Amino acid sequence: MKGEGFSFQLLKEGGQGGRLGRMTTPHGSCATPAFMPVGSQGSVKALAPTDLQEVGTEILLCNAYHLYLRPGTDVIREVGGLHRFMAWEGPILTDSGGFQIVSMSALRKVEPEGVQFRSHLDGSLHFLTPEKVVQIQEELDADIMMTLDDCPPYPASPDEVKAAVALTTQWAKKSQEARSGAGGALFGIVQGGVYPELREQSAHELMEIGFDGYAIGGLSLGEEKEVTFEMAEHVTALLPTDSPRYLMGMGTPEDILNGVKKGVDLFDCVLPTRCARTGVLFTSLGQLNIKHARYSTDTAPPDPACGCYTCRNFSRAYLRHLFLSRELLAYRLNAMHNLFYYHSLMRDIRQALSEDSMGHIERTLFSRRGDKGDNSRNEGGETVC
Amino acid sequence: MKGEGFSFQLLKEGGQGGRLGRMTTPHGSCATPAFMPVGSQGSVKALAPTDLQEVGTEILLCNAYHLYLRPGTDVIREVGGLHRFMAWEGPILTDSGGFQIVSMSALRKVEPEGVQFRSHLDGSLHFLTPEKVVQIQEELDADIMMTLDDCPPYPASPDEVKAAVALTTQWAKKSQEARSGAGGALFGIVQGGVYPELREQSAHELMEIGFDGYAIGGLSLGEEKEVTFEMAEHVTALLPTDSPRYLMGMGTPEDILNGVKKGVDLFDCVLPTRCARTGVLFTSLGQLNIKHARYSTDTAPPDPACGCYTCRNFSRAYLRHLFLSRELLAYRLNAMHNLFYYHSLMRDIRQALSEDSMGHIERTLFSRRGDKGDNSRNEGGETVC
Repeated sequence: MKGEGFSFQLLKEGGQGGRLGRMTTPHGSCATPAFMPVGSQGSVKALAPTDLQEVGTEILLCNAYHLYLRPGTDVIREVGGLHRFMAWEGPILTDSGGFQIVSMSALRKVEPEGVQFRSHLDGSLHFLTPEKVVQIQEELDADIMMTLDDCPPYPASPDEVKAAVALTTQWAKKSQEARSGAGGALFGIVQGGVYPELREQSAHELMEIGFDGYAIGGLSLGEEKEVTFEMAEHVTALLPTDSPRYLMGMGTPEDILNGVKKGVDLFDCVLPTRCARTGVLFTSLGQLNIKHARYSTDTAPPDPACGCYTCRNFSRAYLRHLFLSRELLAYRLNAMHNLFYYHSLMRDIRQALSEDSMGHIERTLFSRRGDKGDNSRNEGGETVC
Repeated sequence: MKGEGFSFQLLKEGGQGGRLGRMTTPHGSCATPAFMPVGSQGSVKALAPTDLQEVGTEILLCNAYHLYLRPGTDVIREVGGLHRFMAWEGPILTDSGGFQIVSMSALRKVEPEGVQFRSHLDGSLHFLTPEKVVQIQEELDADIMMTLDDCPPYPASPDEVKAAVALTTQWAKKSQEARSGAGGALFGIVQGGVYPELREQSAHELMEIGFDGYAIGGLSLGEEKEVTFEMAEHVTALLPTDSPRYLMGMGTPEDILNGVKKGVDLFDCVLPTRCARTGVLFTSLGQLNIKHARYSTDTAPPDPACGCYTCRNFSRAYLRHLFLSRELLAYRLNAMHNLFYYHSLMRDIRQALSEDSMGHIERTLFSRRGDKGDNSRNEGGETVC
């Protein structure tokens, strides 16, 4: 079964240099590679839909696990679906919650039929099956649904990961069969940990079932970055070129650039909005920690090269003051800036893909930090917040 | 001395029915009676300047005490003044901090020259004189400055209040003399507690010094509402008709309507933004506590009669979900709605003043609650949040 109104058009394939595409859903289309801001509970933290439009968001990620627990699927269905609920008219991808059940809930008990867990909110007991998870996402009216997967923690032995791959395949089959026909597109999630053969097996089994798109799950859980991208590359090389690939939960600007080069089309990460809430801003000169005393009378915007609402109107001195004073506006202005940065990065990447200049983009995007000796802002050069 | 670029035009005086006017400042004008949202620390909680424009704000209140302590006057001057600092281009009135020194700081020691206190932020020791407070407000580039006053707590004996009136007059004189000539307008603050003769004395002494406008301070501190408005009426009857009158720190929609009827032109209160943060919304049918379970699947906007961004886009069910999930967006959407309500109320009042229909406005504004038996939402009928 295919998602009605869903399609993916591969506009250009650059081999090692990434892919340019357009993904169409019942609620509009988006250019790929795309970054999806995270609105787990039906709200991208601190931002209204008009803010998302302003910063250039084309597609959002929400989380079926969170929304199922609160406010409950029935509430959202009653109000007319998730788009109407949160007043976002564009595409929405909902994550199934496989990862959240591992990372947030207590008593995670995986059984062949599904997974038993206690809500992180009130300790109530729940049992979610792959069929139920599809039903939840159809009730939410998600444009893109994710299958329930079995995502083992890291590190895990080959046997543990093998069992998780097997269960993920079984559940993927059941998910596909559970679709009503009226719901959104459905993506399978490739598991396999850090074991290339298991990744291969998982990808092949999912492709045999056939999905509208394929996600790469179970990465960025603690393994070395090099391994992450080896796995991503190993998987994308196997996947059909005419379906979108989604690298789940990543990442830093560097991660995204690397993912694109490995053939990934979709990304999501809490980093830009989470960093916003800790006062860390992404700029063309590296990360800027707005709490730092050096900004106390700094009249410059966070990034003089940036055209976002925040940079057009406010100084580092004001943003620092808002943050230190715990003013709620701080989180919004920081989040708008960081998401604008991420979406600009994606635009730059797409531009580079269309001009075959991916070889240069890394230098263009990241070199200025070093040039200006501004690495002090970026402790260790790694994105941290 | 008069504030340069400051004027007040009384457009219509309706005796017992309130006054219609226009107040002009170096940063634009506003129609009166006006409500000023409170941005004590240089930000109206959860709202950006564009939000304030959207909800109809024409003039803001900031607080010299807060901004002096953090980020410090030097920082704001360095960045180019308070308007530029917070990217608000309209008029700003700064409160002197007399009330905050009473209500927030420790070790409040009033001396003839000024007041010694410890910062509520870090316990640091400060001594503020009336001259220094004018200087601070000039450095902030406030359009309207307030004199430092001695605001006694409630209840206070006639002797205590008498002493406070005397000191307030002395300080008012010093404030007037401390002006550089390049600063904004300066308002005196009438004290006198709940004692009509002392109110009278205070008003006369301030009028003798002469100010651009007159505030009524030291009310709404615990005295009966009836007494509050008796005092307000007693004072406005003495004040010059060609200067604006400002009833400080009030209040509920009912308070504002009453204040207007007593001849007040300016109001400020944290109520709309504070209620927003506790999930209480002002509507044409009374107060609505968005946390209530009855709204869990309610598809209606907070107020079907309201045209604000929040009501045009979101359901009670969604706002309840955001609030219970502690999503930051909740506070912004609630604040936008509540301030829109307040500014609409002021527009309705001005309309009524221009049509001589103030006698009817109370019924129009508040009767619908009872008509629809919706008082259950409004516990006790009083505005509480």
